[in-house]
Amino acid sequence: MTDAPSERTRVKRYNWLAKYDTETIYAILDAMPHCHVAFIHQGKPVVTPTMQWRDGDRIYWHGSSAGRLMQTVEAHDVCICVSLLDGLVLARSAYNYNLNHRSVMIFGVGQRVTDPDEKLAQLKRYVNHIVPNQWNRLRPVTDKELKATTVMSMSLAEASAKVRTGHPEDDAEDYSFPVWAGIVPVSLTISPPIADPRNIPGVEMPDDVLKFRIG
Amino acid sequence: MTDAPSERTRVKRYNWLAKYDTETIYAILDAMPHCHVAFIHQGKPVVTPTMQWRDGDRIYWHGSSAGRLMQTVEAHDVCICVSLLDGLVLARSAYNYNLNHRSVMIFGVGQRVTDPDEKLAQLKRYVNHIVPNQWNRLRPVTDKELKATTVMSMSLAEASAKVRTGHPEDDAEDYSFPVWAGIVPVSLTISPPIADPRNIPGVEMPDDVLKFRIG
Repeated sequence: MTDAPSERTRVKRYNWLAKYDTETIYAILDAMPHCHVAFIHQGKPVVTPTMQWRDGDRIYWHGSSAGRLMQTVEAHDVCICVSLLDGLVLARSAYNYNLNHRSVMIFGVGQRVTDPDEKLAQLKRYVNHIVPNQWNRLRPVTDKELKATTVMSMSLAEASAKVRTGHPEDDAEDYSFPVWAGIVPVSLTISPPIADPRNIPGVEMPDDVLKFRIG
Repeated sequence: MTDAPSERTRVKRYNWLAKYDTETIYAILDAMPHCHVAFIHQGKPVVTPTMQWRDGDRIYWHGSSAGRLMQTVEAHDVCICVSLLDGLVLARSAYNYNLNHRSVMIFGVGQRVTDPDEKLAQLKRYVNHIVPNQWNRLRPVTDKELKATTVMSMSLAEASAKVRTGHPEDDAEDYSFPVWAGIVPVSLTISPPIADPRNIPGVEMPDDVLKFRIG
């Protein structure tokens, strides 16, 4: 196991579940576009759900240029959490109840993507990460839309992951206690796409839509 | 639509998706035990995934008494987000891409549950909320375990919800653009429980385990 990249990144609770290698961290980020971004607004903590994507050793997210999130996080401390629920762990004691999960926590400072070409390239990356090649099929983005959209990024240097899998870890003496123990797997499932009834006649769904993966 | 309970609770972005009625807010909290708690630790924002449950007009969560989360949030500002991903909304422009989702954001101040009876009652409520009647089947909780566990609560007075459903909302002129639009539904799925191979012979799974619901 590699070491934590910084003291605040070092996992303290359930630290035997901690992973600091980029392979694990990147795999979790790439599996789950949904994330929670925490920041301080007017002295108080705020956490907002949004979508994230990764490019190399940086995480990206976007939002309305007029929004609280985007106006607050530039050059300010941010904490982002990406987490996936994989199952319920039914132990023999309430104390050892747990969740199977994969999560990544990242500390850093939000940085606005100011270069117009890079901004466009990142938005394209985001759209195509969800549905391959989709960017070029869409109605082209306008200057007004680009202006109204802010893209933020943050280094992944201070990231840590936690991964829990498998059966309960009960206290040794509890294994003889007569209660059923085990896991209830939970996963995100994608259902077949549903066409917008307002689609123009003859437009077919690209196969790439079926390549959307989550979890 | 009822009004926002406070200025900071008023939804600004996509405010037409906002809901402030307790029925909507409670339904989302009760559907999804997984949440993200944001707080300020040593001047910086931190967001941690954990499990939540509700009792009336308060939200509860628990953790290690020795943990950063529990030691930091008592009598301090907290923001909790509970969110469920319901689908990907593939619009005709990148700008109108969206997610179908249900989310609740709560602002408040963390309050430690200090009364031992109330603490025990809340932990029991949490366990039985996940699997009905499970608390009484488990190896009884010990005083040491209770001491090591902190239960926090927060008022739901400053809560707001956002709910997005259905097909893309494209700009009027984009509906004639020749690209497939629609939604890709996403949902959390529960798979059949898997017994711990270390279960003692003859112990059967209670039917209540099959009552576990999420999403």
